[in-house]
Amino acid sequence: MDGMKRIERALSAAVEQSLEAALSHADGPTCPPLLASAIRYAVFPGGARIRPRLCLAAACACGEDDTSVADHAAAAIELLHCASLVHDDLPCFDDAPTRRGKPSVHSAYGERIAVLAGDALIVLAFQTLARGGANAPYRLVPLLSIIGRGVGVPSGIVAGQAWECESDVNLREYQQAKTGSLFASATMAGAAAAGADPGPWRALGDCMGEAFQVADDILDAASDATKIGKPVGRDVALGRPSAVRELGLHGAIRRLNLLVAEAIDSVPVCSGADGLRAVIAMEASRLIPRELADSVL
Amino acid sequence: MDGMKRIERALSAAVEQSLEAALSHADGPTCPPLLASAIRYAVFPGGARIRPRLCLAAACACGEDDTSVADHAAAAIELLHCASLVHDDLPCFDDAPTRRGKPSVHSAYGERIAVLAGDALIVLAFQTLARGGANAPYRLVPLLSIIGRGVGVPSGIVAGQAWECESDVNLREYQQAKTGSLFASATMAGAAAAGADPGPWRALGDCMGEAFQVADDILDAASDATKIGKPVGRDVALGRPSAVRELGLHGAIRRLNLLVAEAIDSVPVCSGADGLRAVIAMEASRLIPRELADSVL
Repeated sequence: MDGMKRIERALSAAVEQSLEAALSHADGPTCPPLLASAIRYAVFPGGARIRPRLCLAAACACGEDDTSVADHAAAAIELLHCASLVHDDLPCFDDAPTRRGKPSVHSAYGERIAVLAGDALIVLAFQTLARGGANAPYRLVPLLSIIGRGVGVPSGIVAGQAWECESDVNLREYQQAKTGSLFASATMAGAAAAGADPGPWRALGDCMGEAFQVADDILDAASDATKIGKPVGRDVALGRPSAVRELGLHGAIRRLNLLVAEAIDSVPVCSGADGLRAVIAMEASRLIPRELADSVL
Repeated sequence: MDGMKRIERALSAAVEQSLEAALSHADGPTCPPLLASAIRYAVFPGGARIRPRLCLAAACACGEDDTSVADHAAAAIELLHCASLVHDDLPCFDDAPTRRGKPSVHSAYGERIAVLAGDALIVLAFQTLARGGANAPYRLVPLLSIIGRGVGVPSGIVAGQAWECESDVNLREYQQAKTGSLFASATMAGAAAAGADPGPWRALGDCMGEAFQVADDILDAASDATKIGKPVGRDVALGRPSAVRELGLHGAIRRLNLLVAEAIDSVPVCSGADGLRAVIAMEASRLIPRELADSVL
């Protein structure tokens, strides 16, 4: 378990360092100060950073020869995730007053800067990807395609959010796009960054994305706001689909455990498969409080 | 002049075709229908398409060996421009009811879809760039960097828009970022797409960007809404800097003519320099109505 803690710390440090490096290009005297400040505010301090950690863990398991490509890809994925949170929180969507335990970006900086900070984060993600691919242009093409697909149209996180504006929603499509897509991008990008075939890595991302979504539903229904840093009961209030509403609290926890087992089973054959399975188990154990997870045993 | 008209028509056709190809990836049954429709609405029918035309003309003047890279880059640049218009028109910014002679995207589709359509267009631009670079990965790295710089932080169009949220504005920085940056990206991307050194191509884009900005100020002050398809007098009403306010109408027209001459002078040494100078003169002649341009002669 000491070894796992070391790996965990190394993954976290690599993610924060890559994000810091990415944001250093957004600062400087030519950048409007409010925008620069809001971008930093949206990225630090972070949440669980689960997507970039998965990306790095996948690249590591594939035996990457150059950590720089995966580091940049992981940062790009987290920047895109942060961008989506900033825009999702806007008054016209969730009108969320808080995020990660502090005022949301539009609450702190106003709506205009929040729109622009989201835009700038999306662009910065692709600039970051380009920097990472400078020495490996042949890996850049699949990386751009994988990450673009996870975030854009027709079925990335932006499309997922747009399903909330439709009267006739395909639930599976909605959840896959809104959450699953960027998780699938994370594991596939990790493989592609290491020069491996990304195809077999989609299932792991899909399972982890769905597990994360179910965990989020469980937290939204069972936890209190101080613990998760954003208002609770909101998804239900907004009429969003929820695993808890569909399966009940215990049913949802059982479903979460099943998805984690499926994720661990889906790790493709690779040099670091055993280590990656341990990392996934560790990441999964942090999704919901232990006492909730144990309540179905 | 017949030859110029043929070139003009060829540039226009190439831009529309590339945009159509880019958007075809955004359609399909898995894309939320409102979002797909809003994206198309934001891109077609277009405005002057001056940025992508400049990009193609620069690539052509450099003697490009593969038109596909420049076609994709030109489409990416126009998609980013369209994204910026959609977000600039939002209620929290200009609250513009119309754009290009029809209701703005948020007027037609609501604010939520307008935010998402802008986001999706930004992502689609980078996906389009990646498609164009699939067969030329070594050109993809500089293209991503050039286009990212033109649109993001610290000094692209998003940063330009963010200067409007600052109380202490560096005017030169503001205008260069808000308009000049994407024009500079257009000419530099054209060169990079053709495998040429993009550095010497910045001046041409800068001049054309400033000329376009001055022309826009002239139109805003002197034209009527039916001709330019968006409300007039708005920049002045919003307290924005304007060449007309600074130099008077005739002074602004003289400044425009000077900038166009400077642009033509700045064309770098290349195989198609003469043709490009003619294209620039033609593009410039369309910036403001003939009778206005002639009023200072």
